Amino acid sequence: MSFQVYLSGEIHTDWRDEIRRGVEAAGLDVVLTSPVTDHDASDAAGDHLGEEREGFWRDHRSSKVNAIRTRTLIAASDLVVVRFGDKYKQWNAAFDAGYCAALGKPYVTLHSEEIVHPLKEVDAEAMAWARTTDQVVKILEHVLRES
Amino acid sequence: MSFQVYLSGEIHTDWRDEIRRGVEAAGLDVVLTSPVTDHDASDAAGDHLGEEREGFWRDHRSSKVNAIRTRTLIAASDLVVVRFGDKYKQWNAAFDAGYCAALGKPYVTLHSEEIVHPLKEVDAEAMAWARTTDQVVKILEHVLRES
Amino acid sequence: MSFQVYLSGEIHTDWRDEIRRGVEAAGLDVVLTSPVTDHDASDAAGDHLGEEREGFWRDHRSSKVNAIRTRTLIAASDLVVVRFGDKYKQWNAAFDAGYCAALGKPYVTLHSEEIVHPLKEVDAEAMAWARTTDQVVKILEHVLRES
Amino acid sequence: MSFQVYLSGEIHTDWRDEIRRGVEAAGLDVVLTSPVTDHDASDAAGDHLGEEREGFWRDHRSSKVNAIRTRTLIAASDLVVVRFGDKYKQWNAAFDAGYCAALGKPYVTLHSEEIVHPLKEVDAEAMAWARTTDQVVKILEHVLRES
Amino acid sequence: MSFQVYLSGEIHTDWRDEIRRGVEAAGLDVVLTSPVTDHDASDAAGDHLGEEREGFWRDHRSSKVNAIRTRTLIAASDLVVVRFGDKYKQWNAAFDAGYCAALGKPYVTLHSEEIVHPLKEVDAEAMAWARTTDQVVKILEHVLRES
Amino acid sequence: MSFQVYLSGEIHTDWRDEIRRGVEAAGLDVVLTSPVTDHDASDAAGDHLGEEREGFWRDHRSSKVNAIRTRTLIAASDLVVVRFGDKYKQWNAAFDAGYCAALGKPYVTLHSEEIVHPLKEVDAEAMAWARTTDQVVKILEHVLRES
Amino acid sequence: MSFQVYLSGEIHTDWRDEIRRGVEAAGLDVVLTSPVTDHDASDAAGDHLGEEREGFWRDHRSSKVNAIRTRTLIAASDLVVVRFGDKYKQWNAAFDAGYCAALGKPYVTLHSEEIVHPLKEVDAEAMAWARTTDQVVKILEHVLRES
Amino acid sequence: MSFQVYLSGEIHTDWRDEIRRGVEAAGLDVVLTSPVTDHDASDAAGDHLGEEREGFWRDHRSSKVNAIRTRTLIAASDLVVVRFGDKYKQWNAAFDAGYCAALGKPYVTLHSEEIVHPLKEVDAEAMAWARTTDQVVKILEHVLRES
Repeated sequence: MSFQVYLSGEIHTDWRDEIRRGVEAAGLDVVLTSPVTDHDASDAAGDHLGEEREGFWRDHRSSKVNAIRTRTLIAASDLVVVRFGDKYKQWNAAFDAGYCAALGKPYVTLHSEEIVHPLKEVDAEAMAWARTTDQVVKILEHVLRES
Repeated sequence: MSFQVYLSGEIHTDWRDEIRRGVEAAGLDVVLTSPVTDHDASDAAGDHLGEEREGFWRDHRSSKVNAIRTRTLIAASDLVVVRFGDKYKQWNAAFDAGYCAALGKPYVTLHSEEIVHPLKEVDAEAMAWARTTDQVVKILEHVLRES
Repeated sequence: MSFQVYLSGEIHTDWRDEIRRGVEAAGLDVVLTSPVTDHDASDAAGDHLGEEREGFWRDHRSSKVNAIRTRTLIAASDLVVVRFGDKYKQWNAAFDAGYCAALGKPYVTLHSEEIVHPLKEVDAEAMAWARTTDQVVKILEHVLRES
Repeated sequence: MSFQVYLSGEIHTDWRDEIRRGVEAAGLDVVLTSPVTDHDASDAAGDHLGEEREGFWRDHRSSKVNAIRTRTLIAASDLVVVRFGDKYKQWNAAFDAGYCAALGKPYVTLHSEEIVHPLKEVDAEAMAWARTTDQVVKILEHVLRES
Repeated sequence: MSFQVYLSGEIHTDWRDEIRRGVEAAGLDVVLTSPVTDHDASDAAGDHLGEEREGFWRDHRSSKVNAIRTRTLIAASDLVVVRFGDKYKQWNAAFDAGYCAALGKPYVTLHSEEIVHPLKEVDAEAMAWARTTDQVVKILEHVLRES
Repeated sequence: MSFQVYLSGEIHTDWRDEIRRGVEAAGLDVVLTSPVTDHDASDAAGDHLGEEREGFWRDHRSSKVNAIRTRTLIAASDLVVVRFGDKYKQWNAAFDAGYCAALGKPYVTLHSEEIVHPLKEVDAEAMAWARTTDQVVKILEHVLRES
Repeated sequence: MSFQVYLSGEIHTDWRDEIRRGVEAAGLDVVLTSPVTDHDASDAAGDHLGEEREGFWRDHRSSKVNAIRTRTLIAASDLVVVRFGDKYKQWNAAFDAGYCAALGKPYVTLHSEEIVHPLKEVDAEAMAWARTTDQVVKILEHVLRES
Repeated sequence: MSFQVYLSGEIHTDWRDEIRRGVEAAGLDVVLTSPVTDHDASDAAGDHLGEEREGFWRDHRSSKVNAIRTRTLIAASDLVVVRFGDKYKQWNAAFDAGYCAALGKPYVTLHSEEIVHPLKEVDAEAMAWARTTDQVVKILEHVLRES
């Protein structure tokens, strides 16, 4: 049994690598995908389409180019992990969670206990709330075990 | 021509009343709906279902009871307005936007210029970005005008 | 704000009437619907279509005639309440819950604490678990309150 | 021609192995999948996510983790076999059947004659009712035969 | 409780009127709809669009104009009755049945015992097979009864 | 029987009024809807959202505000009429036709014989090609006639 | 470029073999699938499920077992060819055409000129009407050609 | 990461080859597909189905045969590029864009600055507007980069 898992959200810590290492250590048949996590590259995704003076439109253009990738990867995944850090707004992570909810695509959240209350609507639709990347790997181990 | 509009997001300012007054002043045939905006009532939506010691599960229960309302109202609306204030995380607002995006339900965002960058993915799927409630009313006026 | 609620499941106690009385007492704008709850009439729903010696086919025919009603009412409802008694198998109730889950139609379960464990998959997709009909009415009161 | 078949329901007898052996003996190109059938592992699927005092929430958490697997496998299958034993409530099996019905996913039921009446709604939507695992294998043989 | 029922198929006997009279006699809250049943008007539905020498294209044009009506009425109906007479090919009736099946729209068939075998695939997806218009009315009575 | 018809496309001639007069003369129960047909108002639909130096973004903003209206009206209509004049590019009309085709929403085209060839893909998915507004009214008369 | 094509309908002539030979001669990358075309095997598809005295139920059971195969193959195909002979009723072929139409699955019909009129609704939704198997192969050649 | 990209629209310049060369030069794992771009072959796609005197029906037949290919390729693609030249009407390109929009299939447009205004509705739903084939390749490079 194999699984494709999309890793959405926070790009300032190395949680994706932790999951990748855990998945490898556990010998799971999992393909991990993600958005472009190089912050500058992501912000500049549309810059080659022409000069843009307005910040709003620069963001708009880049977000849409990035969305070509994220939409396709979310659609192709069996599970989405949505990571919220404590510091940033990460509205895009909550957006992805809502997007998954409407599609009926299973997702799990990954965040600390401190932000349980503001994330209550997001967690309410999730298949699980994990506090650590190790817990995410354990979920995958269970889901993919020999029956 | 009539329209049903769901007002999602921030519950700490009176932006919903401003839109309501604007819609009435303009004589538009618009039905405005919203989540339960009484903060305490919303947090306590599931409390009558039994005592709950864990904050996570209390939130979980209340969020799901609230979702019975919000899902139905979003599904019934012709347009969703998603409001982001500058202070709070409002992940539920971003979640609703993602939910609308996946359903193909048109939404407009309402927020200040300061938070354009963190909202870029949410704005990218929106039909418009408004800075003021007056602009939202003007959008409705245009959309509902005699052809 | 008005709501249509389909009452699925157990037909041996008067839980539907309790909800009906509660809804009326609370003055809620709710339309309650249900399957044919006259047990004999339900079992005989297809009998006029011709004599049938085999029990399996008699059941088959009647179930399908009943399904014309239940499918339409579930599709038209904003919320489904699924009631499990302690005594009977009520696989049709669990079937309706799974049907709702796949459609993304919100449902709440109504059952005693004794059967929490065997109902865990059904409850996992529910928007709430209520122990009493009074709790169901309270959910409706919250969902339908002035915002 | 190849087929993926999900085996849902009862986990207390070895009916899955019987089908597996029958499929192999018949040389069919069939991939068989199933939920986690180790009862304790299934009940404990969410235990690594943190201590949980309440039985309801422990069940809730585990059911959702298990659902990540079952939803994906049901979606990927060409046919679902839903097995009901005589002893247990197996509401999850009926839930899976309803879930399949709403998705238009073909399923067959596997159960004894004694429980035909309480399963009538579940059987009414099924593509076939089989009494023995041998009959299930025969269905697969027919479905997969050279035309 | 009210129902909209589309009456598809044979146009050479007065079975639609029989159902209409039965529905009225039983005092059912049912709206009956149908295709254009005036044979010549149906065949000529596209003739005003210009002269057409080829029989195939004349049929093609008229069928598509008629389909504007039938598609809309099928989509709006709660139940479809598909009538097969013994004499004609009535491929359009079988087409409507397949169309309903793929949409998950419930339908019942109405035909004599003589043509059970050639209609087996059509009947297999139907909610009921009625031999007489009186049986169709009885199905509606059951479906619409006070619960 | 009543119908809602959306009139898409060309805004430089009075074809919408011709259909409106024809529908009234024929006494049909038809609600006609349309995009904002005041050319300047349509182009300026987003101008109140802030100054915009770039023509592309001004167009972008206005198109999206207009789309709030058109998407909702197309979704609510039973039939769409797509009008192509001989002079302009009217890519928005062809866009609406493609949009309808993917949704399975029936549409008819209205255009002269001169542009049959470049419109062949658009006409191939249409339910009819009309040359005159009178023919459109005749289609509606047929579709809405007493059966 | 490769294609999967389901060959639906008539089982009394060797039209499927003609297409198979044509496809091979043309060197096309096409996988051809079909229902069980052995007439007796198809009629007996459900016989191993137990004795059945009633012809209607025997047909019912076999049709549903056959449908496990046909539904899956239709869903997996890029194109469906629906063949109508002159002699038989072939309501199952028209049923498959309607099923495809509702799913938006492209199909072509294959039949003689004599039955154009009774097939007008079926042809109206088809992507092409072919008179000979050679024409079907030519369609596939065109569809699969190097661009 | 791999991608399938459908290249829709203009067939009079070699823009498809430019993209193909750019994709190869960049070493991207991209499969490019397209409609039949041989103009005469496309117009004659249905000619082998029989003589046809009327231009409208000849076009109709050929368009539908071509649509068997285009529908399948659009459905299978991760991204669609829609090219508009300055000279021709290319209503089929705008039709494809509308078709993608309704399906939620991401597309980018490729056209010069001169036709920004008439394409505003088409661009409003696009993920990006590119002026050169080189920009399209750069979008693909970004979308497919190692995260």
